[in-house]
Amino acid sequence: MISFRVLNEEIIKELLDIKNVIQIVEEAYILKDSDQASLFPIITHVFEPGKADMDIKSGQLKGNVNVFGLKIVSWFGENIKKNLPSLIGAIMVFDSQTGVPLGVLSAEHITGLRTGAAGGIGAKYLARKDSENLLIIGAGRQALFQTAAALTTLENIKKVTVYDPISNEMAINFCNNIKIRLKNDFLSKYENDKDYFKTLAKRYDIIFKVADDIKKAVGEADVIVTATPSRKPIIKKEWVKRGTHITCIGSDMEGKQEINENIFSIARVFADDINQIIKVGEAEIPIKKGIITREDIVAEIGEVISGKVAGRVSEGDITIFDSTGIALQDLVTASLALKVAKEKDLGIIVEL
Amino acid sequence: MISFRVLNEEIIKELLDIKNVIQIVEEAYILKDSDQASLFPIITHVFEPGKADMDIKSGQLKGNVNVFGLKIVSWFGENIKKNLPSLIGAIMVFDSQTGVPLGVLSAEHITGLRTGAAGGIGAKYLARKDSENLLIIGAGRQALFQTAAALTTLENIKKVTVYDPISNEMAINFCNNIKIRLKNDFLSKYENDKDYFKTLAKRYDIIFKVADDIKKAVGEADVIVTATPSRKPIIKKEWVKRGTHITCIGSDMEGKQEINENIFSIARVFADDINQIIKVGEAEIPIKKGIITREDIVAEIGEVISGKVAGRVSEGDITIFDSTGIALQDLVTASLALKVAKEKDLGIIVEL
Repeated sequence: MISFRVLNEEIIKELLDIKNVIQIVEEAYILKDSDQASLFPIITHVFEPGKADMDIKSGQLKGNVNVFGLKIVSWFGENIKKNLPSLIGAIMVFDSQTGVPLGVLSAEHITGLRTGAAGGIGAKYLARKDSENLLIIGAGRQALFQTAAALTTLENIKKVTVYDPISNEMAINFCNNIKIRLKNDFLSKYENDKDYFKTLAKRYDIIFKVADDIKKAVGEADVIVTATPSRKPIIKKEWVKRGTHITCIGSDMEGKQEINENIFSIARVFADDINQIIKVGEAEIPIKKGIITREDIVAEIGEVISGKVAGRVSEGDITIFDSTGIALQDLVTASLALKVAKEKDLGIIVEL
Repeated sequence: MISFRVLNEEIIKELLDIKNVIQIVEEAYILKDSDQASLFPIITHVFEPGKADMDIKSGQLKGNVNVFGLKIVSWFGENIKKNLPSLIGAIMVFDSQTGVPLGVLSAEHITGLRTGAAGGIGAKYLARKDSENLLIIGAGRQALFQTAAALTTLENIKKVTVYDPISNEMAINFCNNIKIRLKNDFLSKYENDKDYFKTLAKRYDIIFKVADDIKKAVGEADVIVTATPSRKPIIKKEWVKRGTHITCIGSDMEGKQEINENIFSIARVFADDINQIIKVGEAEIPIKKGIITREDIVAEIGEVISGKVAGRVSEGDITIFDSTGIALQDLVTASLALKVAKEKDLGIIVEL
């Protein structure tokens, strides 16, 4: 009989570290760029508008990873009343050579990490190397992952400013707890690698402060990450200084928008998947409004990583990485978790 | 933490019986008819033409069943060399009220049963009640399920004739073993229900013979089930006598065809899903050739089951049930397996 591994949330948190997830997500982007990966159409279904929906993202990767599979995630807004999480998801991974199932994994932490990794990769390849000020917009669940990842890929950050458009209290709480969370959830993974532990400990030991004034915070930022569920722009064009890099994480559905669409007219724009950012990403609205066209999107990030296309061409460039999130990120991260779990003999093996 | 049940092939074989699967698949068709069920778009991907592909079928059911989920099935032709099954599949079932995962199940036996059930339901609602001669075309994996299900729903069958267009040997083997297989795999489920056991034992204890002459076999048949991977018609129009019912199971991909397209011009045609039979079912070719139009399809089978539309209107009607297979069949059958497994405390519970 065929068997596969089940990895729950707790084990996945134990197994994965941000540095290796960033590395494998880069690999996914590169495979996509070299036609070694396919994204299948996304399936979405609304059970009840504003109350419950679900989607299925699926795809395939060749190369070293060599898997196919899917992530199914549902959102049931009223689950809180039932003492259940609103977002529940699972990832299924199969061997691309045989179709044999490799694993079923909880999707929550993997989604957090792979989305953080995307932000870190955007900053790594598109921000100025001397970037010192990081601005995180949105102090929700993703803020931690974005912060952890950006500080992993950027070497010179001295200050992280946090702004939440809905709840200043959340931004305050975030800043109060962030150092402990970075230490416990991210840094702790490198206790057996003294040198890297030291490097990362230093990068994480910087100033975290709540933004008093979003206009001023944007004006000071070298790197901005937006990770909100916003449907109206939070950042104005005239606030953004030359040389800034912006990673847009929040927009992943039609109608979502985090930054003013006119910023696209002065920026070099990069995508995780061009088709997807036009449909559901931050690029949707500027394209619909005719501010840019599809042809104005410089490249997918995989082309930058593999060196085919230049990211930033001058210090003064404003760059945007529009990251909508693709199944390939989930599949490579899940594969990494399965690989480490196998090495460490963790998870439950069940027969199909 | 959230937990779900894993049911492997062996346990599923133990848990499910054909009578209850037929009943729940009828319920799925009825829910579909009453807009209490949705089919999501099918995702297909070819890894290598003629060598490996996969598909994801998904959907949602309300009503008593109240689940959503998916079946992912892959086919890797060269798996035989690796001592692995060519077809590998898994079904994931989630609660439609909360998104909580209910189970991960092996797809093979469920697919066999739910496809058999479809054939049984077609015969139940569309064949003449006095049908005595059943012709099974295709002696492959599905033949057993089709036979078991048709003999469950038809009360007066006296003879089953079996024809395989590729291998007469397979038809011979099938007829040699069928009584033992029906007894062990199907009848044995009713050992605790003496009356039903007796009824079904009698229906299964009939003549099984290999067709000498396909033309003659078709001419004698009251009910025909086609379950082959054929891409050219096996049955000619002029062979089919008045009053015959034909269930077409094999055609589930563009280009597949089992019966001559002109039969559609003289038949009352029913579908599991009208959109799907036009795209990938037996109806694809007659519609493409202009022999019938979409409007000539009388109804979906759910409308017949729920009594909204008449199936057969006269003894002389030739009826066709074009069954391509829909995710709802898998989801209800998987739900039934999970329900019985819970009652019997079978399967493995794992945390997500």
